[in-house]
Amino acid sequence: MSELAHAKVQQACRILEELGLDAWMLWVRETDQMADPALRLVLEGDLVWPSILLLTRQAKRVAVVGRFDADGLAESAFDRIVPYDEDVRPALLALLGELNPQTIAINVSRSDVGADGMTAGMRDWLAELLAGTGYAERLTSAERLVGALRGRKTAQEVDLIADAVRETEEIFDAVFSELASGQTEVEIHRLFHRQIEARGLGFAWNPAHNPAVDAGPEKGFGHVGPTHRRTRRGHLLHFDFGIRKRGYCSDLQRMVFFGKESEIPYEVARGFETVRDAITAAAEALRPGVVGAEVDAMAREWITSAGYGEFKNALGHQIGRNAHDGGTLLGPRWPRYGDLPEGRVECGNVFTLEPNLTTEEYGMISLEEDVVVTETGCQFLSTPQHRPICIPC
Amino acid sequence: MSELAHAKVQQACRILEELGLDAWMLWVRETDQMADPALRLVLEGDLVWPSILLLTRQAKRVAVVGRFDADGLAESAFDRIVPYDEDVRPALLALLGELNPQTIAINVSRSDVGADGMTAGMRDWLAELLAGTGYAERLTSAERLVGALRGRKTAQEVDLIADAVRETEEIFDAVFSELASGQTEVEIHRLFHRQIEARGLGFAWNPAHNPAVDAGPEKGFGHVGPTHRRTRRGHLLHFDFGIRKRGYCSDLQRMVFFGKESEIPYEVARGFETVRDAITAAAEALRPGVVGAEVDAMAREWITSAGYGEFKNALGHQIGRNAHDGGTLLGPRWPRYGDLPEGRVECGNVFTLEPNLTTEEYGMISLEEDVVVTETGCQFLSTPQHRPICIPC
Repeated sequence: MSELAHAKVQQACRILEELGLDAWMLWVRETDQMADPALRLVLEGDLVWPSILLLTRQAKRVAVVGRFDADGLAESAFDRIVPYDEDVRPALLALLGELNPQTIAINVSRSDVGADGMTAGMRDWLAELLAGTGYAERLTSAERLVGALRGRKTAQEVDLIADAVRETEEIFDAVFSELASGQTEVEIHRLFHRQIEARGLGFAWNPAHNPAVDAGPEKGFGHVGPTHRRTRRGHLLHFDFGIRKRGYCSDLQRMVFFGKESEIPYEVARGFETVRDAITAAAEALRPGVVGAEVDAMAREWITSAGYGEFKNALGHQIGRNAHDGGTLLGPRWPRYGDLPEGRVECGNVFTLEPNLTTEEYGMISLEEDVVVTETGCQFLSTPQHRPICIPC
Repeated sequence: MSELAHAKVQQACRILEELGLDAWMLWVRETDQMADPALRLVLEGDLVWPSILLLTRQAKRVAVVGRFDADGLAESAFDRIVPYDEDVRPALLALLGELNPQTIAINVSRSDVGADGMTAGMRDWLAELLAGTGYAERLTSAERLVGALRGRKTAQEVDLIADAVRETEEIFDAVFSELASGQTEVEIHRLFHRQIEARGLGFAWNPAHNPAVDAGPEKGFGHVGPTHRRTRRGHLLHFDFGIRKRGYCSDLQRMVFFGKESEIPYEVARGFETVRDAITAAAEALRPGVVGAEVDAMAREWITSAGYGEFKNALGHQIGRNAHDGGTLLGPRWPRYGDLPEGRVECGNVFTLEPNLTTEEYGMISLEEDVVVTETGCQFLSTPQHRPICIPC
């Protein structure tokens, strides 16, 4: 996949130019233990000693790394490797002196975890390293750069996500054929894990609650593992499931009904259709240039104007290397989301669409589809769920 | 393993008392994507929404988390869970108002990656959340707290590491029995990976260069994957290998010679003994209260006084949840190591001892053992390598 890193590095240099930034600097260490999420976009493998990766709008690609890390970068997208032994400072200052960037974007962001890969201690250390040089005043946030770099998927990245989505749907189909009323959430969770293992796939998030398996009306949704609660005739079963395949993630929610299609209660049918149609309405509004919060509001109003309460999450997040891939969010303007809902949607962004609502007698109804933004609108990567999957029993 | 988290939480409260700190606060989000390394000590699983975990010296254990994360904490060591929906601020301020800690330690450290889990953006955000309240002035670094908490392994943690070391040695033995001259580094690397897979183990660091496999004199050591270079009669073969088993790591280096014991060249024999004896000398000096840099200096001088150049790494780092577990380092006072070599060794610390030297004709000779610090000295968790493992050919 090193060809991917090369493509993203080239893209980063173009975005620097577009945003009028001179350089982007990653400042990391011990990335096997705690990695800047942006690092994986531009480099395979890990850096142990304190390391600087510097890209410029003139497409200079320099790595200042500890000697033990240097050989590992031979095949990387960085074409100039500066090894050091005891102290990174002389090499760093020499490099900045030579390239003399007027603006240096660093990975610090209040709102976007994906663009906030520099730790507080590393920022303090950087300030010390640059003390008295004048470079400290040239530092600025790389939030927009990283958001664009992660968010604008290359054709290859979209293909990888689409492939992960396709295989996720295959796994759903395989598990659906094994479902029966009376199984516990734990048992059903295991059916997914067997598929993941047999196919040699990874998980898009913590396997302990991937998939989320929610049987019946009592269980609240959320980031919680399966219980010994059993599926039963006349009840709903909800899944939130995502895989990681060749480094890229899927994230889908599906709803199952235990019983024949003709037995679906009106309350379930109406709730399901409301969620499904909220997704359709949001997808119709999703196109380059639209503000994230506006798309969220469309789905949110669709649900509330049908008489349901507001859902307590964002309509959609980006997916990619991570299930929550940062950048522009299709979300409400709540403090916890920071500035992300103010971002504008761009071509190549891949979003989830995942509204939900709560019924009185059957618990929550929640669906999630994955879409890619095109030049004029968006395209579904998943095959949208149009009706509850019925397991006759 | 949730019993382990409970024990570490209790230990953290005792260390707060010992250090005269009122509270320790973790402030994290999307930990599946980028996790504060200290989080895993006190909590299994991940937190998605911006979350506060607060421990006090009075052993209060409170988690302020997004509603979707709340249910996942039911079995955790935190006994008071405060869920929020849109904004974490009101719950945070209410909590601080109630507990009124005079000092609040946060995970910000220039030197120790393990104690530097708060990102720069999160710290900025925290400053905003606390603006105008007076609490911002009570923030202080948790470096010493986290160093002690990670470093002072409980009896259960030592057992887990000892078990990982034992199984690592089993794997070495299994692979040694399959070695033959003429194999490539890539082939030998694969022998280890097969063992890891068959035994259902994890890797202590990136599998791409775990184990490091270094055949013959040309290859420099370092964090780099195996090549197509072949082992051959009369040459050395070096390994740096570590596994992760039930959450805890091993980290060992071993040296193999292709030929009979009687064929070991004098230069190799002398180099090997020098490294081996440097480890013995360091182990004899290692005890509670000694400063890390002093133990490093002992092994370093052993090597240089035998006429070899200085090794370009620290003598030893702590191991535990991670192969590089942070805290006091047995290392030289080089800028890149920050304050870590100034730390004092404590009972329960588990260290590697890994000096090395370079021979003129046979490349580097490097060994690594794992030891636990006891009340009066230290004890080897590994069985120290006393002579090169000979593969007759």
